[in-house]
Amino acid sequence: MVIVMGPDATQGDVQAIVEIIGTAGGDAFVSRGVSRTIIGLVGDVAQFSALDLRGMRGVADVMRVTAPYKLVSRDNHPERSTVRVGGVPIGPGTVTLIAGPCAVETPQQTLEAAEMAKAAGATLLRGGAYKPRTSPYAFQGLGEAGLRILADVREQTGLPVVTEVVDAHDVELVASYADMLQVGTRNAQNFALLQAVGGIGKPVMLKRGMNATIEEWLMAAEYIAQRGNLDIVLCERGIRTFETATRNTLDVSAVPVAQRLSHLPVIVDPSHSGGRRDLVLPLTRAAIAVGADGVIIDVHPNPEQALCDGPQALVDDDLRELARVMRDFPPLVGKNPAGDVLASA
Amino acid sequence: MVIVMGPDATQGDVQAIVEIIGTAGGDAFVSRGVSRTIIGLVGDVAQFSALDLRGMRGVADVMRVTAPYKLVSRDNHPERSTVRVGGVPIGPGTVTLIAGPCAVETPQQTLEAAEMAKAAGATLLRGGAYKPRTSPYAFQGLGEAGLRILADVREQTGLPVVTEVVDAHDVELVASYADMLQVGTRNAQNFALLQAVGGIGKPVMLKRGMNATIEEWLMAAEYIAQRGNLDIVLCERGIRTFETATRNTLDVSAVPVAQRLSHLPVIVDPSHSGGRRDLVLPLTRAAIAVGADGVIIDVHPNPEQALCDGPQALVDDDLRELARVMRDFPPLVGKNPAGDVLASA
Amino acid sequence: MVIVMGPDATQGDVQAIVEIIGTAGGDAFVSRGVSRTIIGLVGDVAQFSALDLRGMRGVADVMRVTAPYKLVSRDNHPERSTVRVGGVPIGPGTVTLIAGPCAVETPQQTLEAAEMAKAAGATLLRGGAYKPRTSPYAFQGLGEAGLRILADVREQTGLPVVTEVVDAHDVELVASYADMLQVGTRNAQNFALLQAVGGIGKPVMLKRGMNATIEEWLMAAEYIAQRGNLDIVLCERGIRTFETATRNTLDVSAVPVAQRLSHLPVIVDPSHSGGRRDLVLPLTRAAIAVGADGVIIDVHPNPEQALCDGPQALVDDDLRELARVMRDFPPLVGKNPAGDVLASA
Amino acid sequence: MVIVMGPDATQGDVQAIVEIIGTAGGDAFVSRGVSRTIIGLVGDVAQFSALDLRGMRGVADVMRVTAPYKLVSRDNHPERSTVRVGGVPIGPGTVTLIAGPCAVETPQQTLEAAEMAKAAGATLLRGGAYKPRTSPYAFQGLGEAGLRILADVREQTGLPVVTEVVDAHDVELVASYADMLQVGTRNAQNFALLQAVGGIGKPVMLKRGMNATIEEWLMAAEYIAQRGNLDIVLCERGIRTFETATRNTLDVSAVPVAQRLSHLPVIVDPSHSGGRRDLVLPLTRAAIAVGADGVIIDVHPNPEQALCDGPQALVDDDLRELARVMRDFPPLVGKNPAGDVLASA
Repeated sequence: MVIVMGPDATQGDVQAIVEIIGTAGGDAFVSRGVSRTIIGLVGDVAQFSALDLRGMRGVADVMRVTAPYKLVSRDNHPERSTVRVGGVPIGPGTVTLIAGPCAVETPQQTLEAAEMAKAAGATLLRGGAYKPRTSPYAFQGLGEAGLRILADVREQTGLPVVTEVVDAHDVELVASYADMLQVGTRNAQNFALLQAVGGIGKPVMLKRGMNATIEEWLMAAEYIAQRGNLDIVLCERGIRTFETATRNTLDVSAVPVAQRLSHLPVIVDPSHSGGRRDLVLPLTRAAIAVGADGVIIDVHPNPEQALCDGPQALVDDDLRELARVMRDFPPLVGKNPAGDVLASA
Repeated sequence: MVIVMGPDATQGDVQAIVEIIGTAGGDAFVSRGVSRTIIGLVGDVAQFSALDLRGMRGVADVMRVTAPYKLVSRDNHPERSTVRVGGVPIGPGTVTLIAGPCAVETPQQTLEAAEMAKAAGATLLRGGAYKPRTSPYAFQGLGEAGLRILADVREQTGLPVVTEVVDAHDVELVASYADMLQVGTRNAQNFALLQAVGGIGKPVMLKRGMNATIEEWLMAAEYIAQRGNLDIVLCERGIRTFETATRNTLDVSAVPVAQRLSHLPVIVDPSHSGGRRDLVLPLTRAAIAVGADGVIIDVHPNPEQALCDGPQALVDDDLRELARVMRDFPPLVGKNPAGDVLASA
Repeated sequence: MVIVMGPDATQGDVQAIVEIIGTAGGDAFVSRGVSRTIIGLVGDVAQFSALDLRGMRGVADVMRVTAPYKLVSRDNHPERSTVRVGGVPIGPGTVTLIAGPCAVETPQQTLEAAEMAKAAGATLLRGGAYKPRTSPYAFQGLGEAGLRILADVREQTGLPVVTEVVDAHDVELVASYADMLQVGTRNAQNFALLQAVGGIGKPVMLKRGMNATIEEWLMAAEYIAQRGNLDIVLCERGIRTFETATRNTLDVSAVPVAQRLSHLPVIVDPSHSGGRRDLVLPLTRAAIAVGADGVIIDVHPNPEQALCDGPQALVDDDLRELARVMRDFPPLVGKNPAGDVLASA
Repeated sequence: MVIVMGPDATQGDVQAIVEIIGTAGGDAFVSRGVSRTIIGLVGDVAQFSALDLRGMRGVADVMRVTAPYKLVSRDNHPERSTVRVGGVPIGPGTVTLIAGPCAVETPQQTLEAAEMAKAAGATLLRGGAYKPRTSPYAFQGLGEAGLRILADVREQTGLPVVTEVVDAHDVELVASYADMLQVGTRNAQNFALLQAVGGIGKPVMLKRGMNATIEEWLMAAEYIAQRGNLDIVLCERGIRTFETATRNTLDVSAVPVAQRLSHLPVIVDPSHSGGRRDLVLPLTRAAIAVGADGVIIDVHPNPEQALCDGPQALVDDDLRELARVMRDFPPLVGKNPAGDVLASA
C-alpha cells in the first residue's frame, strides 16, 4: 500500500501514520517529494485496510499496489490451468465449444438442440433449468424436471452438462445432475451462492457481472477458490455501457487481461453479450481470435417458439459456419478445437 | 407493442405478422408510412414477448410501450404509498432518517452509534449483521449474534431495526429480529432472495442495483410485490459510471423519476454512493431537496476502528449539522421530518 | 509518481529505473515490501511521463500522485474564486441564476424569455446563437444575427449575456457581443477552442464533457487558464451512463468534489442533464442544496414552437416556483441569491 | 414516429395530436389498445421533431422509428462502399493495415516507423503532426513541420499519409499534405471541423467518439457526407466504460453493427482502445476476425523515447507476428490483405 500525503501535511501527520502502521505490525517507508510526501507500507495489507487511513489528518490518497486475490492469481501460479468437465478440457491448449438451448423446455427440444450443438463441434451441452429473469412474469425454467431432461440428453448424446444454479440451497441438487455449475451474471456478487458452489466439488463456470470490473470478477472467483474449489472457468459475457444497439458490450480485451492476471481459463458468451443472432458468429470469431479458451453459444431448433432469448439462438442454417469457425480459427492462435483433442485421446 | 418493419419489408411480411399475432390472440393495426410500415399490437404482451418477432422476415425493430411492472406501477395506484416500519412512516409526507453503523461490531459500538443516530433525528436504526463484501478476506459480519445486538439496542433506544439479508434461506431468521429487511445492491437481481422477502410479511428496503436501470429496479420490486408484499421502500444508492472520484455516482434524478413511475417511497443512501465522509452531508441535502422520502446514513463512534466502510461514516462532529439539515430542509419541499411526526402523534 | 514493481522484478530491474530517473533529473526512493518493491519518484513529473516507465522490465504499475493541473487547482489557491460577469458575481457567496432560451429564434421570443428569466430571479441571460446539434438536419442557430438579438435584449433588460461559441475562429466575434463565453459539452476537449477562449479576456463557462472525469474537466479548464484567463466557471451538466430514463445522469457529487479540487466556481445545468421539464425544478433544488454556486436554466415563452430542446424549457407556470427555490434554498447553504447581492450593492 | 399515449389520455388528447400532425403536413394513424393508445405518424420527421409532442397532454412517450441519417445509411445504398486513399482500397474486399508513429517527432523516427509499418504489411502511413492532448503541458505535435516530414517519408516509402486535423481552420493546410484526414475521438462532435473536412475533397477517417453511440457516430459521418464528401472511413477506437484495466473498452460488436447500418468501411484502432502494447496483437486479431475492413496501429522504433503514447506502440519484435496476423486472418473472413491487392494490381 502507498499513502500519498496532501500538500499541507505536517511532519506530525506523517509521524502519526508511521506510528499507527508500526502498531499494526507493519513498516512505513517515507519518501519526501517536492510537493508531496509518499509513505510506502510493508506488511499485512488486510490489517491496514481495516484502519481508516484515508480519514487520518494530512492523507490525500491511499493506493493499493497488490492484487486483493491470491488463489486465482497468476502471480502465485504462473502456468495457466486446464479445467476438466466430464473429461472435456477447457484451458490454454484448446477452444472448447459449449452449446445448447438457453432454457430447457421439452425433452425433444433439448435433444434436438444437443444434436445441433454436437454437429457444430460442441463437446459440452449447455441448458438452463433455473432461469433468472428480469420479469417475474417471464418463464422461470422447469427446475428439477429440467435437470432430469438434461441428464437424459447427456446419456443420449454423450455430452457432459453445464447448467445454472441461482440459489445457494439448490447447489447440492443441481450438482447431483450437472457436470459443471454455472453462476450467472446477476449472481456474480451473490456471495452465499459463490461459497456454496465453492464447497460442492464440481467445476464452476463464473460469468462476469455485467457491472463488474475484471478485478471484482477475479475476487468473485476467489470466493469460490477459498472454499477449496479451483476448477473455475471465467466467462466474459458483456458489460453494461451506454451503447444500446447491443444488449451489452462484449469486452474482448477482458480475455487477455484476465488470462494475464489469473491462471484460470477464460471463455466467452457471444450469444448473451450481443443479444442478436446476427452478431453471434462474428463475436465467436473475435473471441477465438483474441485468445479465448472456449465459447458458449445458444442454439435452438425452433427459436420462434423459444420460451427464453429466442432472438439470439443460432439455427440450423448457422451450424455449418459455426463448425467452420471452430475448425479454422483455433489453429491460428496455437490451439486445438476441443473436439479434436477428444478424438485423438 | 409496436413493430417497425424495415424499408424492404414486403406486403407478405406484414401479413405474416398480422397472422401470428392473431393466432396469439391479439390484434394488429397496420400503419403504412412513406418509408416504413408500423404495426401496433393489442393484447397480452407477455404472450407476444415469447414470439421471436424480431426474428421474423422484414422486422426492423420491436418496441414495448407499456411498463413491464404492474403492482408497483403508479399507473394502477396513482396515490403515493406510505410504508410503516415499527410504526415509523416512510412516504410522501415525511423525510425519515435511518442511521447507524455500517456493520454491527460490538454491543457498545452499536449502542453508541444508535444514540448518535437518535441525536441527529433518526427514527430507525440501521446496522449490518450479514455483510456482502467484495473480498472473501474482509469482515463478513457477526451473523445471528449481530441480530441479537440489534434487538437489544432497539430495546434500549426504542429505534426499530433495518438490517440486510443476503441469502434466501436466512430470511426467516433475520425477519424474526428485524423490523425491516434490506436487500443490497449486489442482490438486486438475486431473484430467489427477492421472492423470499416477498413472502415474509415484513417491510423491505430494496437498494437499486449499481448497474440497474430504473425500470429494472422497479422490476425487482415487482418480484417482491408479486409474492404479496407491497411494503417496499426503494433506495437509490449510486450507479456505476466511468467517474472514479466517487465510489459510485449518486443518481438524484432517479428519485423523482421513480416516484413518478411507482407509488412506492424512494429514499437515498448518501454514504455508500459517495463512499467519502465529506460528501455525506452535501448529498443528504441534495437528496432531501430533490424530494427523497428519507435518507439512510452510516454513523460510527470510532470510524478509525470500524471493520467496514469506516471512511464514509459520520462522526460526532457531523451530527449537529445532520440534525440541522433534517430539520430545515424538509419543510422547503413540503415534508415533515419523521421525528416530528412521531413526536406529534 | 510511484512505480510498483512486479513480484518477479529483479534487483537489476529496480536499479535500471533508479538510473533512468536519475538521468531525467529526478530522485528515486526504493521501498522493499514482502511481495512488492515500490519506487517513489521525486522531480519533474512531466519529464517522467515522457519515459516509457510502464514498458520497462519488472514494472507492474505506474501511479501518479499529484494532480496534473496547477493553475485551477485549489492546492495552490486555497480560497475559492468569484468570477464577475458584467458585474454579476458567480462564486462561493452566492447562487446565481442564469436563464433564457436554449436557442435565440426571434427578437420577441428572446425578449419574452429574458423577462421570464428576470421574473424568476435571473441576473444573467443565456441564449444560443450557435447551436451544436447531433443532426446536420437540425436548426443550427442564427449565428451573428442571434448575437445581435442578444445584445439588444441585454440593452432592454440589463441582463449580461452568456452565449456559446463552437469554433475557435468565431471566438473574437462572439466575444464582441457576449459578456461570458460558453464552451459546450461536445467541445470540452476541443483544445483549439479552449486555447482561443483562454486568450480573449472574457469570462468563460466550461461545461463538463458528458464523458469527462472530473479530472479531465479540470484539465480542460487548465487549457483555458494556461492562456492567461482564470475567469472560468465550471458547469456540471450530466454525464453519460447506461440509464436511459434521463438524457444524461446529473452528477451532483461532482459539485463538492470539483469545489474541493479547484478554486473555480461550479454551477449546474438542470435543463440539459435531465432533458425533461418535470425534472428541472427538483434538480435545481438538489443543485443548490449540494452547494452549487449557480444554475443555468432553459425558459421559453412557447416551448411547443421552440426550434431546440422545447421539451425541457420551463414555462410561465413554473416561474413562481423557480423564484421561490432561488429565494428559500440559498440561505440554507450559507449563500445569498445573486439578485439580493446586486440589490444590496 | 410513434406516439404512445398514457393510460389516462382522453379522446380529446388523441384528437389534439391528430390535428397538430395534420397542420404539420403529416398523417396520424390511431391504434387503440387495451391500456394504451398508439399513434403512428407518417410524413416529414424533421418537421415533427420541432413540435413539443412530448409536452402535449396525455403523451407518455415519443419513439423514432427511422434512422436520422440518410446519406451514410445502408437503407439507401445497400452495397458496401470502398474508399480509396492514394490508390489504396479500404472496403469490404480487403483488410488494410495503416501503421506508423503516434506522433511525428523527427524525420528519422518517422522514416524508421514507416519502414517498420511497411515490413508488417502496411499500405498506408499514419502519424500525427497535431496532437490533441488531455494536458496542456504535454507535447502537442510539430504542426506543419510534422506534415512536411510525413510528405518526405511518403516520397521515400511510397506510403500514402493519414494524419489528424484538430481545427476547422487547419483543414486546408493539412489536406495539402495528407492523403486522408483523420478526425479524432475528442472531435467526434466538433461539427465545425466535420463540416470543414466534408468540404475539402479528401478521404476522411472518422474515429468514434469515446462516448458516442453507434447512431451518433453515423450522425457525425452524416455531417461530413452532407457537405458532399462520401469518402469516409469509420474507425472504432474503444468507448468509455467503468472498466479501468484498459484505457477504453474496444467495442468489437460495433464493427458488424455499423457495417449493417451504413455502407461505409469500418476499421479498428487496437492501439488507442487498449492503451497497452500487450493487447495490440490480440485486439488486432479480434478486429479482423469480427470483420473489420482494416486496422490502424502505432509502431515506434524507440517507444521508451516516444513523446506520445509510447507504452502502446508495437516494437520491432512484434512486427513478424503482426505480419503473420495480417496474412493469415483475412482469408478466414473472405478478405484479402490490402497489400496483396496492390501487389496483384
